Amino acid sequence: MNGELSSLLVRDIGEQGLLKILQRFCPPEIIGDDAAVVSTESGQSLVVTTDVLVDGVHFSEITTSGEDAGWRAAAANLSDLAAMGATPLGITVGLGLPGEVAVSWVEQLYQGMTQCLQRYNNTPIVGGDIVRSPTTTIAICAFGQVNPLRTIRRTRAKVGDAIVVTGVHGASSAGLQLLLHPELGQNLSDSDRTALIHAHQRPQPRLDVLPILWEILDSHILLPVAGMDSSDGLADAVVQICRASGVGAVIERTQIPLPTQFNHWLTQEQALEYALYGGEDFELVLCLPTELAYAFVRQLGEGAAIVGKMIDRATVILRDQTEEYPDQILNLDRGFQHFSH
Amino acid sequence: MNGELSSLLVRDIGEQGLLKILQRFCPPEIIGDDAAVVSTESGQSLVVTTDVLVDGVHFSEITTSGEDAGWRAAAANLSDLAAMGATPLGITVGLGLPGEVAVSWVEQLYQGMTQCLQRYNNTPIVGGDIVRSPTTTIAICAFGQVNPLRTIRRTRAKVGDAIVVTGVHGASSAGLQLLLHPELGQNLSDSDRTALIHAHQRPQPRLDVLPILWEILDSHILLPVAGMDSSDGLADAVVQICRASGVGAVIERTQIPLPTQFNHWLTQEQALEYALYGGEDFELVLCLPTELAYAFVRQLGEGAAIVGKMIDRATVILRDQTEEYPDQILNLDRGFQHFSH
Repeated sequence: MNGELSSLLVRDIGEQGLLKILQRFCPPEIIGDDAAVVSTESGQSLVVTTDVLVDGVHFSEITTSGEDAGWRAAAANLSDLAAMGATPLGITVGLGLPGEVAVSWVEQLYQGMTQCLQRYNNTPIVGGDIVRSPTTTIAICAFGQVNPLRTIRRTRAKVGDAIVVTGVHGASSAGLQLLLHPELGQNLSDSDRTALIHAHQRPQPRLDVLPILWEILDSHILLPVAGMDSSDGLADAVVQICRASGVGAVIERTQIPLPTQFNHWLTQEQALEYALYGGEDFELVLCLPTELAYAFVRQLGEGAAIVGKMIDRATVILRDQTEEYPDQILNLDRGFQHFSH
Repeated sequence: MNGELSSLLVRDIGEQGLLKILQRFCPPEIIGDDAAVVSTESGQSLVVTTDVLVDGVHFSEITTSGEDAGWRAAAANLSDLAAMGATPLGITVGLGLPGEVAVSWVEQLYQGMTQCLQRYNNTPIVGGDIVRSPTTTIAICAFGQVNPLRTIRRTRAKVGDAIVVTGVHGASSAGLQLLLHPELGQNLSDSDRTALIHAHQRPQPRLDVLPILWEILDSHILLPVAGMDSSDGLADAVVQICRASGVGAVIERTQIPLPTQFNHWLTQEQALEYALYGGEDFELVLCLPTELAYAFVRQLGEGAAIVGKMIDRATVILRDQTEEYPDQILNLDRGFQHFSH
């Protein structure tokens, strides 16, 4: 970024000045009409999701770099598409900005978003709106396409299904705690600390697992897949799927994949707390017949695991197969009763 | 709305409580997944647009009723779709809300949005996000579909095209002035005052003109249509189309259709000021070969008019065919150099 720009504030250059800078991040053919035109493949359904992120609630303009805020905003929306089985087509970005925001922060925000978008299907930013606001606000709408027979929904879990997670849980929220409280984790190596913080700042939407899933399901074209992402925590994801599908679940404590960095730092209880309730890991939680689940987890490799199964009861039970801990009923309220996202 | 609810604040019921109320405004099948699935017709292109509206900038939570704010937010986005020639498929709604906002205001916001959406193609709200924010913020993303041969773009105007407006200009901004300064327009009748205020509070996106346009263009399937909406003023629309198409324009002062209510109230100069620079009329400004333009205006009826033509020069000239006023070069800067929408 150029040195002269770095001291400029949004109010110095106004909407038109800012647009000129940010248009560099958009495909030229979409600029300058009332709306963007996007091609979809025939036979595919459109999938749409939206997220609003607010300074001081979901990120802090002071402590979060523009790049990290941008990456995370894009990743959260791409993860919602992945959770539906959809391939991204594009996003729109609505920005509310106070005049005192540094132009360089906004430019970095777009750099972070495009870094993430380019990595995943080269997804374009196809439109946006920039307005004055007392509060920095990022409103993203992401849209993608899915083969209607391959749409992943929360409602489709069946008793007996294995519950697959596509990766480790707890790293993102542990990374956030390390950022907020640098005095924590004194016995962590520098590289372990960095890895956990990176998991928080640069979460990876799991669009990469979809082709693997379709390959596993190749000869089961009509098999409905249940699932969602674990953006609000693994516990929340399992409870949401159970509620939507009218089933229950047993989760095996010892099967939940944890970040290796936790070994040198946290007790088993603390680690489980992060993994179940931490959120923002953006892994997928999928319900599949056991045999297919095993094949899927083998293909996914490290981090992926079968963590439990769907049962014919109205509760979600956390079980310890080593019998050290008694059965515990998972409490949804810990997972997502916050007035935010 | 129920009396008990009317005294509740958002913080009293939280995100989950608010979601339960607002889900009544969404089709039940879209609730509860990470994203919404929408069917598109094959052979159609997807059109996407987004708008962010901020309390104190684009509306005032104190002086704007929730219903009016909702109607206008939906109308502005549907107008962007109309300006592309697209039929709406759905919208997503992202809301940032302070805890002190009345639940009834949010409910009315959704009522206003759905009133507008139902009137135009029964467009559904297919998704959303509700988050805590210090500033009430409404982020709408609207998407629709268009026959790729029928996409209306700003870049397609040709020298000689007639400039059609689909209705009168200036009513919305005059209505806003009457709301802000009730002492204005003492010589307006009550019904005239009400009509102008209504034009501001309940603007009509011109989706209704598209079938008429397609009928007129029926035997001209490959004719590219240039145009946009006049949300930022008639002057801005003409200048934007000229810039995008690399042409100029002559606008005839006396041909600009004005609200009849202006006759008893404003001088010709004041009326023209509102019509050219007022904005938010949400009419379409379209460029067509003269013969088709005449046929189109005849079909549209009252309010529609040919206001000028495209010329082979780099300026936009305001001309008086009665020669009372000298030629005037339209100044874009008056139209839209505000840091807002």
